[in-house]
Amino acid sequence: MATELVIGVDIGGSKLAAGLVDDRLRIMQRLQRSMRGQDTAELLDTVAGAVAELASMAPREVAAVGFGIPSLIDRRNATSLMAVNLPLADIRFGALMSERVGLPVFVDNDGNLAALAEHRAGAGAGAEHMVLVGLGTGISSGLILGGELYRGAIGAGAELGHMVIDLNGPPCQGNCPNHGCFESLASGTALAREACALAADRPDSALARALHEGRELDGSLVTELAHDGDSAARDVIELIGTRVGVAIANIVNIFNPQLVVVGGGVMGAGEMLLEPARAELARRALPPLRETVRVEAATFAHEAGMVGAAVLALDGLAARQGRL
Amino acid sequence: MATELVIGVDIGGSKLAAGLVDDRLRIMQRLQRSMRGQDTAELLDTVAGAVAELASMAPREVAAVGFGIPSLIDRRNATSLMAVNLPLADIRFGALMSERVGLPVFVDNDGNLAALAEHRAGAGAGAEHMVLVGLGTGISSGLILGGELYRGAIGAGAELGHMVIDLNGPPCQGNCPNHGCFESLASGTALAREACALAADRPDSALARALHEGRELDGSLVTELAHDGDSAARDVIELIGTRVGVAIANIVNIFNPQLVVVGGGVMGAGEMLLEPARAELARRALPPLRETVRVEAATFAHEAGMVGAAVLALDGLAARQGRL
Repeated sequence: MATELVIGVDIGGSKLAAGLVDDRLRIMQRLQRSMRGQDTAELLDTVAGAVAELASMAPREVAAVGFGIPSLIDRRNATSLMAVNLPLADIRFGALMSERVGLPVFVDNDGNLAALAEHRAGAGAGAEHMVLVGLGTGISSGLILGGELYRGAIGAGAELGHMVIDLNGPPCQGNCPNHGCFESLASGTALAREACALAADRPDSALARALHEGRELDGSLVTELAHDGDSAARDVIELIGTRVGVAIANIVNIFNPQLVVVGGGVMGAGEMLLEPARAELARRALPPLRETVRVEAATFAHEAGMVGAAVLALDGLAARQGRL
Repeated sequence: MATELVIGVDIGGSKLAAGLVDDRLRIMQRLQRSMRGQDTAELLDTVAGAVAELASMAPREVAAVGFGIPSLIDRRNATSLMAVNLPLADIRFGALMSERVGLPVFVDNDGNLAALAEHRAGAGAGAEHMVLVGLGTGISSGLILGGELYRGAIGAGAELGHMVIDLNGPPCQGNCPNHGCFESLASGTALAREACALAADRPDSALARALHEGRELDGSLVTELAHDGDSAARDVIELIGTRVGVAIANIVNIFNPQLVVVGGGVMGAGEMLLEPARAELARRALPPLRETVRVEAATFAHEAGMVGAAVLALDGLAARQGRL
């Protein structure tokens, strides 16, 4: 029997990553789209267009589509309540997409899906209690508690990016009313802000030269400069890594997990970011808890959300067919 | 048939509260003991003495004893790993107490038991997702997720008191290596520290006069002065309440609970403390989440831990007898 094909779509704060995935979670085709500055209608068009393009590349019929959206979702009525970084408030996203793409559609929060992917087939395989943190434009997260995704009372929980770690910290972005939350201090957006600030302070750094040349100081450029040995770029990544460590200390004290998995685009920095994070965790978390937790990079890196969306679609089909 | 009698003992950071409780959770007798400055042996003597005294007051045989301890517990081997505010590291507390009191003994974390009491018969009755915060010498907490106590990988989770809310904040107390955690900023100990600081700044306040008279500026005295209209005392409670609100905003963004229950000795301040907490929650939590949560005072107030310890003992007996 031929393997089943689904499409997984991860809608991030600034771009979309979609993949044609088989039921052994092999990614057959990939595509990306920018969604920066799009309004709701443009955004829905971009998403539907990406699905149609992938479906046209498929060697046989696609069975379903899974979507991860960076939104708080009310699972009682399948509505996207709000998204911090995209215009997705009060939209019945699943129903709208199902009409557009003409296939069975399944939707969940992007952080939940990344956690699902890592727990099913990645760094967290077999973990009973695992927390995923995704460092991108914003910060997504997902909780596996007792072997299952934890979603909260209306299904909108696990917004660890909006946990305050500095009560006097800077305002958060987009639709978040908070300030000093994890996302405001350690997301890709925060990394870019800190990189610009440090470039101004250290005009002789490669960081400053790049800024002067008009290049955008995003996570991948700062990581590249740090790899090339620029100390200013390294300091930016260490600063962000230390803040990630504060948040992980909170996660460890709150959940006593076996495992914290860190993914998202910013994790292109890899151990340069995880090392200071682990050091800060060791300085802050309660002794018996910090000794029983591992902190690891996500297996699926920036593709965890997309793979998780495919898992959601495959699980959803199996449930409909009575196989789950 | 006569109702079953158990003893519930809540061991706090500075004092013990014990009660003789029947299986309808009626408290027949109460006693308190100070444990300030005691070493491990003295502490165990105080606890065993309190149990013996309550047992001697019982009209008939006591069936079991439940203990809540302010410790991280490794449930794999029933060991108290460490307590932030008491000398309870690496002790098999249950086995030791069982020998001393000659009765079946059940042990859990004090915050977990307060959550159990409120969920069984208090403010959280029927809540599917509920978080309890206990403001005492330290800050205890308990999580009811999906209708059950959540304890984490080794059973030592739910230490929300040691969640950082101000990464540049003051050092925490006792055995916690952290700084700027919730407990360091909003416990009874923090309240007393802030009251002393404000008394020095405002020499004409009733707070300053009380300090000058050599009185201890603890939670109950500050609450009394605030009730009497002293604006400095009111400001201290508002400051602590606002910080409690920051922590509750985190809890709401992380867990999407229906209910946050606030108990512990500091809650003698009641609405004077909860009002600024709710206001800060409204300023910080994500819109759809803050609208679906209630923040309420614990029904059992400072006795939640003791009642929860009794529930633990009653449940434990029922399980042994195959009734659960």
